[in-house]
Amino acid sequence: MSDLINKQVILKSRPVGEPKESDFALVETPTPEPGEGEILSRTIYLSLDPYMRGRISAGKSYAASVELDSVIVGGTVSQVIKSNHPQFQVGDFVLSNNGWQTYAVSKGETLRKLDPTQAPLSYSLGVLGMPGLTAYAALLDIGQPKEGETVVVSAASGAVGAVAGQIAKIKGARVVGIVGSDDKRDYIVKELGFDVGINRKTQELDSALKEAAPNGIDVYYDNTAGVILETVLQQINLGARIPLVGLISEYNATSTPSGPNLMPLLIKRALIKGFLVSDYQHRFNDFLRDVSGWLQSGQLKYKEDVVVGLENAPSAFIGLLRGDNFGKLIVKVNDDPTAA
Amino acid sequence: MSDLINKQVILKSRPVGEPKESDFALVETPTPEPGEGEILSRTIYLSLDPYMRGRISAGKSYAASVELDSVIVGGTVSQVIKSNHPQFQVGDFVLSNNGWQTYAVSKGETLRKLDPTQAPLSYSLGVLGMPGLTAYAALLDIGQPKEGETVVVSAASGAVGAVAGQIAKIKGARVVGIVGSDDKRDYIVKELGFDVGINRKTQELDSALKEAAPNGIDVYYDNTAGVILETVLQQINLGARIPLVGLISEYNATSTPSGPNLMPLLIKRALIKGFLVSDYQHRFNDFLRDVSGWLQSGQLKYKEDVVVGLENAPSAFIGLLRGDNFGKLIVKVNDDPTAA
Repeated sequence: MSDLINKQVILKSRPVGEPKESDFALVETPTPEPGEGEILSRTIYLSLDPYMRGRISAGKSYAASVELDSVIVGGTVSQVIKSNHPQFQVGDFVLSNNGWQTYAVSKGETLRKLDPTQAPLSYSLGVLGMPGLTAYAALLDIGQPKEGETVVVSAASGAVGAVAGQIAKIKGARVVGIVGSDDKRDYIVKELGFDVGINRKTQELDSALKEAAPNGIDVYYDNTAGVILETVLQQINLGARIPLVGLISEYNATSTPSGPNLMPLLIKRALIKGFLVSDYQHRFNDFLRDVSGWLQSGQLKYKEDVVVGLENAPSAFIGLLRGDNFGKLIVKVNDDPTAA
Repeated sequence: MSDLINKQVILKSRPVGEPKESDFALVETPTPEPGEGEILSRTIYLSLDPYMRGRISAGKSYAASVELDSVIVGGTVSQVIKSNHPQFQVGDFVLSNNGWQTYAVSKGETLRKLDPTQAPLSYSLGVLGMPGLTAYAALLDIGQPKEGETVVVSAASGAVGAVAGQIAKIKGARVVGIVGSDDKRDYIVKELGFDVGINRKTQELDSALKEAAPNGIDVYYDNTAGVILETVLQQINLGARIPLVGLISEYNATSTPSGPNLMPLLIKRALIKGFLVSDYQHRFNDFLRDVSGWLQSGQLKYKEDVVVGLENAPSAFIGLLRGDNFGKLIVKVNDDPTAA
């Protein structure tokens, strides 16, 4: 054991419906020593993402559940402080899966080295990381927007939606974003260049969509499912494509909600295809080349919502599921030595 | 006008829920004369198909509704009795869209000549016609079953399902059929060679499917949607494909039913794609070559359910939506001069 104290957020009880802070607990434990081929790293940034809600449920999802009293999983940027692996030196920055804790031991093979001169470190948890690849591959490989087509994006100011919508604009589509506040609506239209933003909490979605997409909807980038998908389905065009990327609307549900009626899929010969980013690692290099380029040219903008302190992760995560965050939600667990 | 009397079944009122015989009326009108480029034909066989339920609703479907007091649409085999078109001679047999009537005038361009020495005339309304192409193209182009995979087919003894399931067997899949009676279950297993049949009216679908498809479901050929789709979705494998070909379960619904929860699509990265046979005319030649060959070799069997007399079309159609028919439902409107 090292003499460093490891702060961890563990799962105390499985949330029913919306998670409560009491479902989580902050504990301190000794920091383990790295074994052969392993490295010990200090967490700098922790990414909070809606998929984590599935991991803390007992129910079957696309990955194993987090056990009770275990550290909650999560992608992180961390700095190597001890290394028994030839490819990593003390001081290196790495993309890791430390989860909700200040230190972790990892096998070298699971880490990717980061270059802080290329982009801010935290970007590799967002626009240049898993959420960015999710936006890129689901939009381009399943949605396949063509110039002049209409693309609708739900959760459009989120880490994934904001990137998906901007890529659709770059590809020449008309882009409509659905968000949950006027601030977010202004942001996606004025800052990100979406053609139209709809605040689903104050506008009647069906008529707002009809007005925003007078020629119908060709691609629906679906982060939410539920009633938004149901409404969109009534307005899809022949051969529409719907990458089903998230079901945020039902992550907190206590029983399985019904889905939309699928008749429009048949009438319009449209497709809904489930998407999980882990199937698209072969697109990572294309993604990094394109999205880095668009960021540098200013065609693509990126906003982060940074919460300071691991102890604030539970409340930030609870807010994320409600849509309280604005931009990619990141927890700053320790100081970032590369930040200005 | 000709001096022939044309018997027609017209739509008297739009059915609410299950159609009633009083929604239809049998009327007699003079038979029209064919104009330039047109032919007059006598209906021999009328095909009854579930899609017709959508056509007699006011609601939006993939084609225009039948107007009140108009003849109900339908595919037919007919014989030319007057021709003003150089490609058709009196006595020729043609695939036509006469609808529910004994005579009709058609433009020559809309007709396809049939050769009664190749296959029984009525087959071009079933296994060698639109339902057969539906089975072939939706299964092979969307479902894409691979050898050793498990394919589930709903409405499996119907005109489409029976062909889809047999083609899946020919392609080396394990095939499970869902039907609505023990007779039909025996038929698809003993006569058609399905691996397992499930009677959804007497068996618990969830556990019966688990037993019939112990390795999970790779392709679900969906003719019904509704609760069957919901149950199947719980048992799909990674990357499953679901051609959505029909929604028989809800054609008689008086309000829009909810669909299944789509979470399994995301978890399994599966796809549901709406299918309409009119998009697949480019596959007609492949289809005819393959399916004719399989019929001749005995690898594919075909059953017809023939109702005699146009006046019996309404009751037969009502039964079709309930699943009362057994095999492709055909109305014999006039004698078939080529039948033995």
